[in-house]
Order: sequence, then structure tokens, then C-alpha cells
Amino acid sequence: MRITDVVVTPIAFADPPLLNSTGVHEPLALRTVVQLVVDGGVVGLGEGSGERDVLDHLEAVRTAIVGRSVFETGLIESIVFSKLGPDVSAMRKRRVFSILEVACLDAQGKLLGVPVVDLLGGAVRSWIPYSAYLFYKWAGHPDAEPDEWGAALDPAGLVAQARRMVELFGFGSLKLKGGVFPPDEEIAAIRALADAFPGLPLRIDPNGAWSVETSHRVASELSGVLEYLEDPVLGMDAMAEVAARASMPLATNMCVVSVETFAEAVTKYPVGVVLSDHHYWGGLRHTRELGALCDTFGLAMSMHSNSHLGISLAAMTHVAAATPNLAYACDTHYPWNRHDDVVQPGVLRFVDGAVPVPTGPGLGVELDPDALDRLHRQYVDSGRRSRQDTVYMRRVQPDYDPTLPRF
Amino acid sequence: MRITDVVVTPIAFADPPLLNSTGVHEPLALRTVVQLVVDGGVVGLGEGSGERDVLDHLEAVRTAIVGRSVFETGLIESIVFSKLGPDVSAMRKRRVFSILEVACLDAQGKLLGVPVVDLLGGAVRSWIPYSAYLFYKWAGHPDAEPDEWGAALDPAGLVAQARRMVELFGFGSLKLKGGVFPPDEEIAAIRALADAFPGLPLRIDPNGAWSVETSHRVASELSGVLEYLEDPVLGMDAMAEVAARASMPLATNMCVVSVETFAEAVTKYPVGVVLSDHHYWGGLRHTRELGALCDTFGLAMSMHSNSHLGISLAAMTHVAAATPNLAYACDTHYPWNRHDDVVQPGVLRFVDGAVPVPTGPGLGVELDPDALDRLHRQYVDSGRRSRQDTVYMRRVQPDYDPTLPRF
Repeated sequence: MRITDVVVTPIAFADPPLLNSTGVHEPLALRTVVQLVVDGGVVGLGEGSGERDVLDHLEAVRTAIVGRSVFETGLIESIVFSKLGPDVSAMRKRRVFSILEVACLDAQGKLLGVPVVDLLGGAVRSWIPYSAYLFYKWAGHPDAEPDEWGAALDPAGLVAQARRMVELFGFGSLKLKGGVFPPDEEIAAIRALADAFPGLPLRIDPNGAWSVETSHRVASELSGVLEYLEDPVLGMDAMAEVAARASMPLATNMCVVSVETFAEAVTKYPVGVVLSDHHYWGGLRHTRELGALCDTFGLAMSMHSNSHLGISLAAMTHVAAATPNLAYACDTHYPWNRHDDVVQPGVLRFVDGAVPVPTGPGLGVELDPDALDRLHRQYVDSGRRSRQDTVYMRRVQPDYDPTLPRF
Repeated sequence: MRITDVVVTPIAFADPPLLNSTGVHEPLALRTVVQLVVDGGVVGLGEGSGERDVLDHLEAVRTAIVGRSVFETGLIESIVFSKLGPDVSAMRKRRVFSILEVACLDAQGKLLGVPVVDLLGGAVRSWIPYSAYLFYKWAGHPDAEPDEWGAALDPAGLVAQARRMVELFGFGSLKLKGGVFPPDEEIAAIRALADAFPGLPLRIDPNGAWSVETSHRVASELSGVLEYLEDPVLGMDAMAEVAARASMPLATNMCVVSVETFAEAVTKYPVGVVLSDHHYWGGLRHTRELGALCDTFGLAMSMHSNSHLGISLAAMTHVAAATPNLAYACDTHYPWNRHDDVVQPGVLRFVDGAVPVPTGPGLGVELDPDALDRLHRQYVDSGRRSRQDTVYMRRVQPDYDPTLPRF
């Protein structure tokens, strides 16, 4: 059960022009796929950030991991931490390790014939609800045809997008990526969604684009309408000011991003809802531990998402199934990127907005080698090595200023 | 991989007259052994408290657990919590669940052919150091022959006991159960141990027998001598007062005993060292989570022990092996009770004070059915159903007053 190879493959996949507070998604999103080969031929899959530094770091630890038992994830974590040295932050090390940890757990499950969720304490739920992740967006990328979703630049456009999301996937809650247009427009959009989808929980995430004063006003106007308000402002002190007057819980994946910031946050403000992300927290077991931390301090727990494909969706689904207090519908970008998946179709599907926990060994998904090849060639040909939402936005709007708060 | 039966066997085993702040250990200590039978015949072992309420609670949840998958420990935990209802405290529920969780993990490991430590993230160390657990004690129980250890009622007696412990087991650190004699006598004992064993870390645990004022004095007199001072006083406020002036870290298994008390403690005082105990915290996975909690809040971690046998020693060893920040030598009563073990000899051994992490499937230990029968008959014949150190002490010293603080 020794690791004999760690194959790291950067990929690029189609991404629509989704707007956010720092700019707009480029035509290709980057991601890394890891195939962790174990003696005997079993291969464990991991997926994570496609940024250049992650690839470099994976390369730097690769040979030190070969030869270890696939069950020694604690030891592999310490190898990652020591090999990457003091100049690399703990948060970056966790991003690298998370990809390897998921691959190890996938391999373990395949070796043992059990699903990953069973290695995490077993499922407390067999379907994981996700929310519709709504974005303001252009009809298509500049100089390209409109995509299947069309434009969403006002309340009517977002309601139409939400309607399509709900029709296609059955989502039972809606989240809007905000911080794009002046707050009154986004308040109007949330109200339009509330009118169009009565009873569906609603969330908005401006990614720190608002001032404390603006946040107070939005929170007041959307009182009784929002399930939670995510990262309206940047920094714990500002979050504390907003929390002091907001009627709904605040949620965050920008304040509480690590064990270090968790400890600081609980002494500083009523955190509300922590958005977990196994890619940031160092894998699935550490995400279970984050569940225990939230439980200990009476915080609620939901799940954050970046653009991702099926390996990560499977991993998110397994850990959510094993985490009793992860009771909110999770975020996922998957509907935006699903056509370019690297896993074979069939296992991952949405019914009434929920994904069934895969029951096959490991993560329960199989790599599609042709898709991986195609997306890797796309990565190589693109020449892209990092995400640059602001740079891309400035091609269309040269004076675009991403300084936060914007409003 | 369904659970087909849960066999609960209360046992009683020989225990020397060990003195503590509430009285003295009775001639028999009580314990419960659980055999969790899985279809196909694999049996998972668990061990925990032998108190009557634990047995009753195990009986109450038994049939609800039969039929569940042995991998569904999260679900089994929720069954235990709901079946036992609101009148049973969360702490008591965790004690019941911990026995079942260890049995499930043992069965999982046996089914999958991997040691329990590999189900917890793999070993970061392959030998677990334990400390010598020194007790003031009588030569033997009243009306009985002296035991193999003889009396230890003064510094010379404790040094002789420590010498035998170190000779037999190779321990590299020493812990004294204090709170028995006036503090000056116990200070003298610690000093005698320091002189006799230069360089060995020393701890004392009076179990809350001291006032804040006494604790200040002991801490001052033993400054530079103690590795840590465990539970000198009862309650977080008193611990905070002691911590404010003590030069050594405080340790506790009486203040921080649950997620609820953890959250309170970190806001109230510099906790120092948390003594984990998987029997109290709800099993091995929750003990790993306690490790994450300690890491998050910068607390050190050691391990607490009650009188126990080999199933628990194996479980303690596996979880300690998987917990990076459990870096102190752990407590164990095992040397006092080892002759009556319910597991077959060979796997559990001490070399230089450390136990090798068992490498066989599951916990890596096998039940000795004859020993189990003998200890169960002993339990039945004894008529004893709960631990009563004070009652037993009063047979010898009728006016014994266990009210704390004593000094």
C-alpha cells in the first residue's frame, strides 16, 4: 500500500463570464488533478487549485511522498509542511496537502472497498443539498458567442438564470454572488428572487465589496429576506460592526480561513456561519475537525466553493455526508463547469438540488482519461498559469478598479 | 458489514489500595467489555466504565444499533444520543458511545485488514510513551496480604515504588497522584523523586484537593521541578487564579471535559495542558478532534487514565499515534491492573516506558475468553455495581471527609 507515483496534471476548462467584486471569470478556469498511484495499480484522485505555485509545491514534495503508505496522511502532511519550508505560509501548505489527502483517501477506499465517507465516520445523510450559485454575467465572453446561460445584469436576468438553475438541478436555495453592482440594484435582485421563489432560502455574498455603513443598510433592507449575509465587509473588526446590528447571521469564508483565524474570530465577533472548504482547510479529515470546532463554539457550518470539477464535487459530498452539523445547503460552481468534467458521467447527479453520496469504493468517481488529456492540452495551449479576474475585466473596462470596499 | 449483536459484559478485576483525594481504590475495579458482532463473524472490542448506569445505557441502545453498518459511527452516535433522551447528560452519552465507537473501529480494521491508527490518519509515531503513575498506597487491602508493590506512604516509599515502576517498564516520566497527605509531605515527595530521578519530568495531580492559596504555595515551592501541575483546584475561576501566578503550565482533566467546557475554558484562563480521554470525549475520532481544538487554541495535550485493561490501552495507543500534538507521555493505570487483563498477552508491552502501536488489524489485540469469563464471574459474585472510594476508606477511617479542598 505504498505510493509509487504522484502524477500532477494541470488542466484548463471552459468557464462563463461570471462577474464578482474583483472582475470577471476568464474563458478558461485552471485546476490541478493529482493521480496518486499505489503499488498494485490502484490510483487515488485529488483535485485542487491550478495556480502555478500549487503545481510548483506539488512538484517539490512529490518524491518525498513516494514510498510512504497511502494510509499515512498525518505523516504526509508533516512532510508537505517541512519540505515547503518556512517561506511558504501554512495556508498555502494546506492547499497543497488537501489535494494529496483526498487522493490518499480515494486510494484507501479503493484498496479497502469502502466509500470515503465510511473512512470519515460514515454518512449521517445520503443526499447532500447544494444551493444554486447565481452570478451576474455577460451573455458571453468578449468576441465569443453567447453561452447557454445568456446575460444576467439586472433582477430579471437573475430571476431567469435562477429559474433555469432550479429547472435543471432542482435547487432548493439560492445564493447570489454580489458586490458587482451598486447595492440598491443587488437589493432589488434579492427582492425579485424572493418574489419569484417564495420560501426558498436566499443568500448574498459581495466578497467584502461593501463598507460597514453600506452593509448596515443592506442588512436592514433585507431583514427577514436573507438566510444569511456572507462576507459583506473585509476583516473581523468590520464584520463585528456589521454583526452588531444585522438581524440575520453573517457567514464567512474570508475571515475564518484557518485554525489560526478561527481562534481569533470567536473572540472578536459573533461569527454566525463558517463556510468550510476542504481545499483550504487541508483535506477532508481537517474539515471534519472544523465541524467539531464549529460545534464547540456554537457556530453554524456551510460550504464554500470555487470553480471545480467532479473529483472535488465527490470529495465535498463525502465530507458533507459525514459532518452532522454541516446542515446548510452547500455552495458549488459545478453547474457552470459541468460540461468539461474530468470524471466519467453517471455517478454525480443533482436530484431536487441534492447530490447522492457516491457508494462505490473511494470517492466513487472514475477519471475520464480522454477528458483529462484534452483539458491538459487546453491548459498547455492557453499559456495561462494563474487566475486574473481583474486583468481580464480591464480588457473590457480599462479603468476597472478592484479596490475594496467598492460601495 | 452489519452489526448483528452487541454483547455487553461487566467485569471486576484486582486493584491495589491506591489512595486519592476522595478515598482509596477498592479491591476490585469495575469495567465493561463490549463485543460488537458483525455479520460474517468479525467481533469488534470496546472497553469503558463499569458503572451501573453505563451498563443500563448500553442495554437501552443495544437493539437500536443492531442492523446498522459498523462504518456508521456518526449515525450510531446520533442513535445513542436520541435513545438515551434528554434526562441523560451529553457527557454520560459520550461515555456510552465511546465504548461502541472503539468497538466499531476495531471491527472496521479487522474487516479491512488495517490497524485502527490507519483509520485515523495513520501513525505519526510508532511508539507511545507513557508515564509512571505513582500512588500513595497501603501495603495491601485491609485484612489481606501485602501486594507486590508494598506500602508507599512517605517520600521513601514513593521513590521505591517509582524505582520498581522504572525497572519494570522503563518509564521516562513520573506522575504522582496527590491530594492525599498535607501538601508539605507531597512537596517533599516530589523533591525526593527529583533527587532520585534527575532529568525525569515530574507531575503531580491532587484532583482539586488544594485551595488556591495552597496551590500558589506548592507551585512556588516546586517551580522549576514540575513539568506541569494538574488540577490543583476545582473550577475554572480557581484554576485561573492559580495559573496567574504559577510558573509551570497547569494541566486539567477536570475543567476541560467536553466541547462545552473547552469553549468556556479558553475564554477564562490559560488552560495549559488538556488531558484527553477518549472514554470521556466520545471515542477516538472525537479525541482527534480534541487535538485539533487544542492546536487551534495553542493548548498542549496529554492523556488521562482511569483504571483500565488492554482493550483501552490499545485504543489509547492507536489514537495517540495518530495525534501529532499529543506529545506528552500519556497517563496509564495499566501497570497496577495488568495481571487481570482480558486481552491475550504479547502485543501490549512496555519498552523504555513506551508501548509499540499494535500493527495487527483493528486494535491489534485479541480477547482472552477465559479471562473474560473469570472477571465477569468475579463481577457477579462481588455484588459491586459502582465505584465507592470514600465508602471504602471509611471502613478504615470512619471520619474520613472527602470534601474538597482538603488542604
